[in-house]
Amino acid sequence: MAKVITPRSEDYSKWYVDVVKHGSMAEHSSVRGCMVIKPHGFAIWEKMKGQLDKMFKDTGHVNAYFPLFIPKSFLSREAEHVEGFAKECAVVTHHRLMSDPNGKGLIVDPNAKLEEELVVRPTSETIIWDTYKTWINSYRDLPLLINQWANVVRWEMRTRLFLRTTEFLWQEGHTAHASREEAVEEAKLMQKIYAQFAEEWMAMPVIQGVKTANERFAGAEDTYTIEALMQDGKALQAGTSHFLGQNFAKAFDVKYLNQNNKEEYVWATSWGVSTRLVGGLIMSHSDDDGLVLPPKLAPTQVVIVPIPKPSPEIGEVAELIMRELKAKGVSVKYDTDPKKRPGFKFAEHELHGVPVRLGIGKRDLEKGQVEVARRDTKEKTSQPLKGIVCYVTDLLDEIQKNLFDRAVRFREERTTSVDNFDDFKAVLNEKGGFVSAHWDGTTETELKIKELTKATARCIPNDAVEEEGKCVLTGKPSKGRILFAKAY
Amino acid sequence: MAKVITPRSEDYSKWYVDVVKHGSMAEHSSVRGCMVIKPHGFAIWEKMKGQLDKMFKDTGHVNAYFPLFIPKSFLSREAEHVEGFAKECAVVTHHRLMSDPNGKGLIVDPNAKLEEELVVRPTSETIIWDTYKTWINSYRDLPLLINQWANVVRWEMRTRLFLRTTEFLWQEGHTAHASREEAVEEAKLMQKIYAQFAEEWMAMPVIQGVKTANERFAGAEDTYTIEALMQDGKALQAGTSHFLGQNFAKAFDVKYLNQNNKEEYVWATSWGVSTRLVGGLIMSHSDDDGLVLPPKLAPTQVVIVPIPKPSPEIGEVAELIMRELKAKGVSVKYDTDPKKRPGFKFAEHELHGVPVRLGIGKRDLEKGQVEVARRDTKEKTSQPLKGIVCYVTDLLDEIQKNLFDRAVRFREERTTSVDNFDDFKAVLNEKGGFVSAHWDGTTETELKIKELTKATARCIPNDAVEEEGKCVLTGKPSKGRILFAKAY
Repeated sequence: MAKVITPRSEDYSKWYVDVVKHGSMAEHSSVRGCMVIKPHGFAIWEKMKGQLDKMFKDTGHVNAYFPLFIPKSFLSREAEHVEGFAKECAVVTHHRLMSDPNGKGLIVDPNAKLEEELVVRPTSETIIWDTYKTWINSYRDLPLLINQWANVVRWEMRTRLFLRTTEFLWQEGHTAHASREEAVEEAKLMQKIYAQFAEEWMAMPVIQGVKTANERFAGAEDTYTIEALMQDGKALQAGTSHFLGQNFAKAFDVKYLNQNNKEEYVWATSWGVSTRLVGGLIMSHSDDDGLVLPPKLAPTQVVIVPIPKPSPEIGEVAELIMRELKAKGVSVKYDTDPKKRPGFKFAEHELHGVPVRLGIGKRDLEKGQVEVARRDTKEKTSQPLKGIVCYVTDLLDEIQKNLFDRAVRFREERTTSVDNFDDFKAVLNEKGGFVSAHWDGTTETELKIKELTKATARCIPNDAVEEEGKCVLTGKPSKGRILFAKAY
Repeated sequence: MAKVITPRSEDYSKWYVDVVKHGSMAEHSSVRGCMVIKPHGFAIWEKMKGQLDKMFKDTGHVNAYFPLFIPKSFLSREAEHVEGFAKECAVVTHHRLMSDPNGKGLIVDPNAKLEEELVVRPTSETIIWDTYKTWINSYRDLPLLINQWANVVRWEMRTRLFLRTTEFLWQEGHTAHASREEAVEEAKLMQKIYAQFAEEWMAMPVIQGVKTANERFAGAEDTYTIEALMQDGKALQAGTSHFLGQNFAKAFDVKYLNQNNKEEYVWATSWGVSTRLVGGLIMSHSDDDGLVLPPKLAPTQVVIVPIPKPSPEIGEVAELIMRELKAKGVSVKYDTDPKKRPGFKFAEHELHGVPVRLGIGKRDLEKGQVEVARRDTKEKTSQPLKGIVCYVTDLLDEIQKNLFDRAVRFREERTTSVDNFDDFKAVLNEKGGFVSAHWDGTTETELKIKELTKATARCIPNDAVEEEGKCVLTGKPSKGRILFAKAY
């Protein structure tokens, strides 16, 4: 099999497209900006979804489902929200098509115009808070901890598979609380859960922090974020959790009777991660031979390839290994396709990111061994058949850990503290990554930095230390460093 | 707690609305025809989804995701399909809103008109077959066995929660095959899987049959259906599986090279069930005290109520029972709410359809027993504490079986063979249910019967026997009986 992946060093964007394509992850559809998520890509999303759903439920959340459509007027209820979300969206204006009286095909029936246009949800705060109004009456109804798995649409001009598409899949949590403190706590808890998921399952290290005012979600008082670093030195906002204050409660008039029988507005949070995570997963670990998947999210964790082709002896050993691996919860496939040669299969499983490959040939069996290839380092070793199952399960853990450690090292190498603007620009241009710098705290300066360097304020890290300093751009006093980076 | 459910005998439609409402299943949203599925209703749908997904995967299917939007022109590609689906649908014509220059609020930006309108998918055959064109080249690519879990929109004039809503959730399988025989076999297999799910999990008996030409899916050569009977004597089409012939392959030009290197059109099936099943579940088993759920789909299978209120002694026993039940995979809750009295809790859990309720009071404990109430028969007995866990798990199985048997008996009582049109009408008016009658096989007669009686041809049952007879309406010769009923 010829090399099908453009090397990262040659063209990073093309590399990403190639990895997505040859990893059978997704492709563009006939509808502008909308993708088809292929079975392999979807199986990864299903694994992500399953684990996240479990983590949400373990922390007391329940799932529900709200309408796809939002009445146009709802969007303008919350003053800031409308600015952020009412711009580029899919607008439903009619509810019927009819045969074209002047020819073939269909036209929109002019008599089926909606009284009020509907917007395909770009996010569901408005329709959900409109519903919460009838669900919340007293402090006994709080907290309300609801999540929804859904598709959303934001009309994007420039799209990229998984990272930015017009339609994408996500989950959106929408919670209601009796106090500011409890809502803030919830927003922070979800940030922690996202970080834990990213690091333990995706093996993708993230910086937890809070967004600057300029980068906040439209309608939020605070946006907590997890930020990852991709291999091209650009940051990826991987998940956000918003403390919404009483903004939506006021916009939709959602009040509750507190324990003293006094009416108060409800406090809110919302939080979401999307299929964008799949893009982050791909860019965190993959290499010039294709996809590299952390074992915990790989649909197939181990593949067994008979060399050069299936035989009863090899089949017997393969079946035994499979049975034992499956009993340990490992997903394993035996690749018996008679039409493909081992070399072809090796390349194919590498492109699909299968973490561990076992090669079994006649000679191996005579020596009582199998060939073990790990996808992350591409190392190959011969291992005794005896104890192979324990070896493989340990190896899966090791690969999971190695991918995470490797990504942490990469991020550390590409996180640089700078103290003047020349260094700021030089670091961004030469090695990229996160730049830790003092900033005077104004949106004006933040926007000026963006204009001059294309870098945006990613976050004020949760673990930032107080440190007197001077803004890299204006020289005005600053109380601590924040992270800047070019970002997706 | 006062009676909140309108009795079936008084007003069946209102009864259904009350059961849905007080069972916390769903409610209408601010968007016409779209429902909000509440956490309890959604938990049931999640259980259904989980089991169906497993059954699909066990039979070799994989999940993927295709776009929400369909270009308008795609709908007219398949001649019959367009008739069935291009009528009432949500049409996206613009991709931007803007502030109203003449006042507050938002208007559709006239400069953001789409070149080609997009339709929110009413079903996805067209967009999926447009994609399959690039996925299928040779017989090696077949069969392609793909399923998608998605939301779809059909602009309905009259809606009813779960049974008919503008937006609903469903799964749609779309498979591609190398031969007619294999595709027909697939369509029949999925009908069987739907029937098995309905009967074993929902405890809802179904008739498996094939639709008449007039009732077929738009674009299908044959539609296999499962038909259930609701308590008001009306039939519910609960799931359909379509053999699509080569209609979509021809419309989207999807060919493959067969083993003899000759190009042929691909054969197709599609099949789906939706949140409508939740409506069927509710109407199959519920009674005048609210929801009745089969244990296999109940989010909470057992609830323990302390009488009259929680105490350390009761808590200790409850914890022990819960631990043992959970170890057996039973979902159980201990209702410790101090603000509600036992009678109120009993009514509430009845409204929510919890299959088994255990009441534990001080006196029960002294006698070494607990009170067991089953939701299906409302029977209450005292059972020894010793062995209670086995008793409860057996009882759950018994309830599952009883609900099914009861529904089978109900259907048998309301399935009537008739041999003339007067009896046909009399049976429909007096007891409803399925009417088994001879029919001359023409759409004309079928439509005439519908016009005269409101009954539609539900299906030609798979197990129908050949039997010479005369059409109940026209007296023309018939080769066998088919089932008619009024239907949802």
